[in-house]
Amino acid sequence: MNAVSDATLSLEHLSQLKSIVGEPYVLADEESLENYGHDQTEHLLYLPSVVVKPRTPEEISAILKMCNEDYIPVTPRGAGTGLSGGALPNRGGVLISTERLNSILHIDERNLQVTVEPGVITEVLQDAVKEKGLFYPPDPSSRGSCFIGGNISANSGGPKAVKYGVVRDYVLNLQVVLPTGEIIWTGANVLKNSTGYNLTQLIVGSEGTLGIVTKIVLKLIPLPKYDLLMLVPFKSLEKAGEAVSAIFRAGYTPSGLELVEVEALKIVSDFINNTTVPIPDDIAAHLIIEVDGNNMDVMMSEMEAISELMLQYEAEDVLFADDAQQKAELWKMRRRVAEAVKLAGYTIEEDTVVPRAELPALIHGVKKLGKEYNFHAVCYGHAGDGNLHIRIKKEGTANSQDDLEVIAGIRALFNLVYSLGGTISGEHGIGLIQKRYLDIVFTETHLNLMRQIKKAFDPNNILNAGKIFD
Amino acid sequence: MNAVSDATLSLEHLSQLKSIVGEPYVLADEESLENYGHDQTEHLLYLPSVVVKPRTPEEISAILKMCNEDYIPVTPRGAGTGLSGGALPNRGGVLISTERLNSILHIDERNLQVTVEPGVITEVLQDAVKEKGLFYPPDPSSRGSCFIGGNISANSGGPKAVKYGVVRDYVLNLQVVLPTGEIIWTGANVLKNSTGYNLTQLIVGSEGTLGIVTKIVLKLIPLPKYDLLMLVPFKSLEKAGEAVSAIFRAGYTPSGLELVEVEALKIVSDFINNTTVPIPDDIAAHLIIEVDGNNMDVMMSEMEAISELMLQYEAEDVLFADDAQQKAELWKMRRRVAEAVKLAGYTIEEDTVVPRAELPALIHGVKKLGKEYNFHAVCYGHAGDGNLHIRIKKEGTANSQDDLEVIAGIRALFNLVYSLGGTISGEHGIGLIQKRYLDIVFTETHLNLMRQIKKAFDPNNILNAGKIFD
Repeated sequence: MNAVSDATLSLEHLSQLKSIVGEPYVLADEESLENYGHDQTEHLLYLPSVVVKPRTPEEISAILKMCNEDYIPVTPRGAGTGLSGGALPNRGGVLISTERLNSILHIDERNLQVTVEPGVITEVLQDAVKEKGLFYPPDPSSRGSCFIGGNISANSGGPKAVKYGVVRDYVLNLQVVLPTGEIIWTGANVLKNSTGYNLTQLIVGSEGTLGIVTKIVLKLIPLPKYDLLMLVPFKSLEKAGEAVSAIFRAGYTPSGLELVEVEALKIVSDFINNTTVPIPDDIAAHLIIEVDGNNMDVMMSEMEAISELMLQYEAEDVLFADDAQQKAELWKMRRRVAEAVKLAGYTIEEDTVVPRAELPALIHGVKKLGKEYNFHAVCYGHAGDGNLHIRIKKEGTANSQDDLEVIAGIRALFNLVYSLGGTISGEHGIGLIQKRYLDIVFTETHLNLMRQIKKAFDPNNILNAGKIFD
Repeated sequence: MNAVSDATLSLEHLSQLKSIVGEPYVLADEESLENYGHDQTEHLLYLPSVVVKPRTPEEISAILKMCNEDYIPVTPRGAGTGLSGGALPNRGGVLISTERLNSILHIDERNLQVTVEPGVITEVLQDAVKEKGLFYPPDPSSRGSCFIGGNISANSGGPKAVKYGVVRDYVLNLQVVLPTGEIIWTGANVLKNSTGYNLTQLIVGSEGTLGIVTKIVLKLIPLPKYDLLMLVPFKSLEKAGEAVSAIFRAGYTPSGLELVEVEALKIVSDFINNTTVPIPDDIAAHLIIEVDGNNMDVMMSEMEAISELMLQYEAEDVLFADDAQQKAELWKMRRRVAEAVKLAGYTIEEDTVVPRAELPALIHGVKKLGKEYNFHAVCYGHAGDGNLHIRIKKEGTANSQDDLEVIAGIRALFNLVYSLGGTISGEHGIGLIQKRYLDIVFTETHLNLMRQIKKAFDPNNILNAGKIFD
């Protein structure tokens, strides 16, 4: 474990922080610092000097003004469910947790919009709008614990993205506190906007390096009435990959199209004590296919057509989920794969994304590279988007993230991804741990543009510095 | 008319340009300069010193390198269909026309993507992918003449945006020549991307101020099989506005939802010699509502439900378009409204956008402000998106854009738009003519961020300088 803290905080700073947010919301005890020093990224610990829990944009502004003046590093943090180390206080200093900015401010049923604070849990938001017959689709696997602010920071996706798009497709307007303490709204509460540079989309996916998001206006859509789910087993992993793009070429757009390699499915099945979903022995991978809509007849005929099509790709017996319980069990398995395989030793997660018809080539390449570089990989993810999560373990290494052979193997994998027209993160972000591979997809020209954009927002480089690039 | 040219070009520059693109593609005769000195924005003429027609990104790169070195203003131009003066060579210098970069490079049916050059006409692209059963939805009214590159520059919308989104929702990756001559790809050919700052979305809608787009990778979707169209007349303009948001609240998402005020419809009806579509006398406005999909039964029942709903908002007799010819006639009327009302003296077009349920308030406000500031306005546009085009004329003024009372009236209108949660351009861009109103929606903080982003891309401020902001 790495523990780094380069505190530049004085007692006066601490007392200033206490006067801004109130004494109970400034934490500097060892346990708190450790709690906020790690996230869901493997093996990493960076201690902040202090954890601050403001309640308002104005408090955040005051904190940033102080830190900006005295060049104190600041790291914004949501729920700490990130997988690339983006919320780790790698330079010490002040960690700002958004957990107390946790109100759903306004569900605007007239305009199908919601205004929400960043510390609201994604599933809480989804449930709240669902009660009004509305739908906010993007839901990362961690939706039960992750914050909507973190989702914006990473431009998250999740299983519904294949039909409904990712976070950035739903963000209309953001209130952002800039590193200098100024508070701006990036856009307007409208569905179309050609007024100046798109600051909203620049903030989405910028991993908390350009400002701290304090209010979010999201587009909502009508909630589809029904969904149907099936599990399609394949004896060949590559064939499963081929089947994915065939579905879209045939004119169908499922609301979920996930791939899970059988090893991952077995691990998660044990992990959650699944007894509902059968996993035959001679299978290499499964597709989980969901169709949603408002007309059950249309959906049934779509499901039938898709399952027919699957047979052309050597699918085995398709399992239709019979009832809500079986659907829930199947989705639970899918959502908990990452957690389960991580516990089983697959500690490194890569978040590759390629044009979806290139999935078979990617899958083939992963296995080949595993042999070459002595790692074992399991694949799962949002196949409909070409977004394949690849979990890697290497026997006998405790911290394989720093293993030179693993690093070389990942580099070879990302080179393959790039050669297929893809890139190195589809929904997790670059954060700390993918920085070393960034040269595969970006030239110095790209990086200089990004550095200068960073400088425009954060002239003193105080906010989440050392993330993405640097 | 304003004619400005501050040529800083020497004979040596001219000969360099000729050696880069070939002599036939460097034009400096008066007629050419005039042809390329105006667009579809009223009353404006700015002469370039020279018009250059390169064929490749490399030629564009060489031109920009030369101009960057000697601080020569460069204006990129597509088809010249813009409505905010964004492609006018307001500082003279070199005008680069993208008309020869006009190839559809690759329709990727495996991945549902197309790679295209910027000088391809939008409708040509749409027809080419349609032949493969694929769909590129964004289609501005000028789709028969505008270029896809210009659409990206303005982040165009069009009638399909209400269901399918605007240009930015389809752009996956862009090849861009930076003002310094470097050529980059902004992203990857993937549906999800969380790798660094979103340079792709920064270029979309930046009105040619950050770089010249030379290749475009667009997402395609399966082409819906059928569409149905109806014309719904209302005696009250505000009621028509109220009906719009009711449709979405009831759970429907039409593929087109346009509003046209009756005066505009009468003008265009005369203009195109319409005999097919009846326009009753006592009507204030019409909604044009389209539903598309693959299941005619579902679509029919949706159309019926929507038309029932419309009666609650005091709609008169709904006219269902019987056949392809009537549909075509109705869309032709809608598409040519702007041209017709412009010829009828409504020379100023504003491109307001508000949250859609605020349409009635906006419509009410427009009429009120017209009385107050002595202008006459007709409204039409993409009501489903809250995007209302407002065409203004003032009796007795030849160039009403510079009339102080009109300017004050537009300012009052935009203040209203902003107070309703909206902004001053939904799909046309700011260009030259909306700059004077930008302070309504942006503070100095916003503008400074944008200026610094501009500087990161264009340190010598040569590319389309003086557009959007200064």
